[in-house]
Amino acid sequence: MLTIKKPFLLVIGDMTNPRNAKTAFGLRDWARADCLGQLRFAEDAVDLGLPSMTVEQAAAEGAKTAVIGIAPQGGVLPAHWVPILQDVLRAGLDIASGLHSRLKDIPEIADLAATLGRTLHDVRHNTLALPVGNGKPRAGLRLLTVGTDCALGKKYTAMAIASEMKARGLKADFRATGQTGILIAGGGIAIDAVVGDFISGAAEILSPDNDPDHWDIIEGQGAILHPAYAPVTLGLLYGSQPDALVLCDDPLRERLNDFPHVRCPTLQEAMAAYLPLARAANPAARFVGISLNTSAMSESEAFETIIRTAEKTGLACFDPIRTGVKAVVDVLADFTATHPVESKTLKIQ
Amino acid sequence: MLTIKKPFLLVIGDMTNPRNAKTAFGLRDWARADCLGQLRFAEDAVDLGLPSMTVEQAAAEGAKTAVIGIAPQGGVLPAHWVPILQDVLRAGLDIASGLHSRLKDIPEIADLAATLGRTLHDVRHNTLALPVGNGKPRAGLRLLTVGTDCALGKKYTAMAIASEMKARGLKADFRATGQTGILIAGGGIAIDAVVGDFISGAAEILSPDNDPDHWDIIEGQGAILHPAYAPVTLGLLYGSQPDALVLCDDPLRERLNDFPHVRCPTLQEAMAAYLPLARAANPAARFVGISLNTSAMSESEAFETIIRTAEKTGLACFDPIRTGVKAVVDVLADFTATHPVESKTLKIQ
Repeated sequence: MLTIKKPFLLVIGDMTNPRNAKTAFGLRDWARADCLGQLRFAEDAVDLGLPSMTVEQAAAEGAKTAVIGIAPQGGVLPAHWVPILQDVLRAGLDIASGLHSRLKDIPEIADLAATLGRTLHDVRHNTLALPVGNGKPRAGLRLLTVGTDCALGKKYTAMAIASEMKARGLKADFRATGQTGILIAGGGIAIDAVVGDFISGAAEILSPDNDPDHWDIIEGQGAILHPAYAPVTLGLLYGSQPDALVLCDDPLRERLNDFPHVRCPTLQEAMAAYLPLARAANPAARFVGISLNTSAMSESEAFETIIRTAEKTGLACFDPIRTGVKAVVDVLADFTATHPVESKTLKIQ
Repeated sequence: MLTIKKPFLLVIGDMTNPRNAKTAFGLRDWARADCLGQLRFAEDAVDLGLPSMTVEQAAAEGAKTAVIGIAPQGGVLPAHWVPILQDVLRAGLDIASGLHSRLKDIPEIADLAATLGRTLHDVRHNTLALPVGNGKPRAGLRLLTVGTDCALGKKYTAMAIASEMKARGLKADFRATGQTGILIAGGGIAIDAVVGDFISGAAEILSPDNDPDHWDIIEGQGAILHPAYAPVTLGLLYGSQPDALVLCDDPLRERLNDFPHVRCPTLQEAMAAYLPLARAANPAARFVGISLNTSAMSESEAFETIIRTAEKTGLACFDPIRTGVKAVVDVLADFTATHPVESKTLKIQ
């Protein structure tokens, strides 16, 4: 699995639009301790509030990897960044990028990295030789965040749960499956870049055997009723063989993101679609919580919705930003006791 | 979509094991009219019973594409075949291969093909720029073969149904999704080589808009309860938005092929897993038949099983080799009348 050396220098360059710097903001917010500083080369560039430093200063302070912190329109690296990234390589740093275009396809960067022995991480592109899935049960516990749609908080929910569990002294690891999550976690597999036959195999190696009371908190992708992205969702569901599922939803969303001709399923429809498939991979799988993205709601509307959903589903219901994830971590803390690990048997049987 | 020029010269070379020549046998059995002859260069090589010819003779008789008819252990082209394939290119033929190793990765072949303007078809590898699926309903009717497992007759069933429908004067096309089917059909998409996000999009372009009474008979892949291959199955199910499903099963198989630790689902379990997902893509989807691979049964046992299964499921039940596919094609011939095409509305809604 991909492993990116820390600490990071976040490269903002001359990007002035904060929305196109969300990779950098994600790292700042979720991996603050791993971010030494920022590299800006324009006065009006986005400011992350981290120490600004030159490439040489960053190297002197021990930075190991420069992370491209921007996601410009079209996902292509601006050409005038190339000489600066060459300086980065010369200063001794690796480079990590979540852009669609590959660093390895830019000869000026690829050749210099090869000459100097630096590593280029194109985290959106998977180069691992992946196995096909085998469906054999693994030790340890797993939670997968799933959704009624894309882009409604599956990554954020998983990171928040892993973080809260660690804070309580529970054994937990966040397992990243998308480029932003991989940069934040410093490793993972960009599952949506994997060929169909190997998706569940990739999910299996992403959450390997572990201690019986250890939780892998796995970042979900896509949605099981999504016309385009469901195959990735299903491979992740089978390969993760989750003990616990958290369903992520945006209560105000009526149509799928970027698919205005497709209605968003209800929570009940989504759970009815996920659960039999999850149980094919792990007969003990169950939903433990609902993560609601209430960012577009008023405070009172949000809390009303959260309470109503909790009553209706009987599950721990929360907004990871507005309420935190304590409600669902309470369930997970008790989980091992009610679902003894010893009872794990061969699945899909 | 891939289109391979016909007629074919089937290259057997010096392969002596008939089991490793199943691509050639499949073409001979299913696309006999497209197979001009065979090229053998060892006395004890497999004999397809087709006219043996040299490369020059084949070219003179109008052969357009030489098809690698063998699948050796490891899927790699024997090195001593390279000069003969160069002769093939010089004689004016394209080359098609379903091997794991790519013709395009063999410089002696790739360079010569480029110089001479010949086309190399590595049918197992997809080089199309595929769209993501959009889930919008398309005109025309579609049948998808699905299975309780892999390798139990989904391709054969689809080809037999398309062939019988054509023989009855019904509008039907076989749509190939695997390398052997693609070579037989002269086109298609090797769906198991597609990256997760694009599987359903590939299935959508494989069976585009068509006449309201036209059937695409689509070769299924994998199985929805399979720990490794289910993502491909699901993408094909969503993108094909089938009106009709035929479930393929081997009644004697207790454990999944190559997955002895996983139990084969029953017909009922498999249908219960497929149907809600199929209806997410097409609310009118339904099972119309069960294709049983009874090749390992006695005649009486086979017929008993077929009759018992038909009674139990209420569906047209058949073995495409032992009984032919008339029973299910009778259902399809009546299908349009009972499911008026005009009622097709926006799906996954």
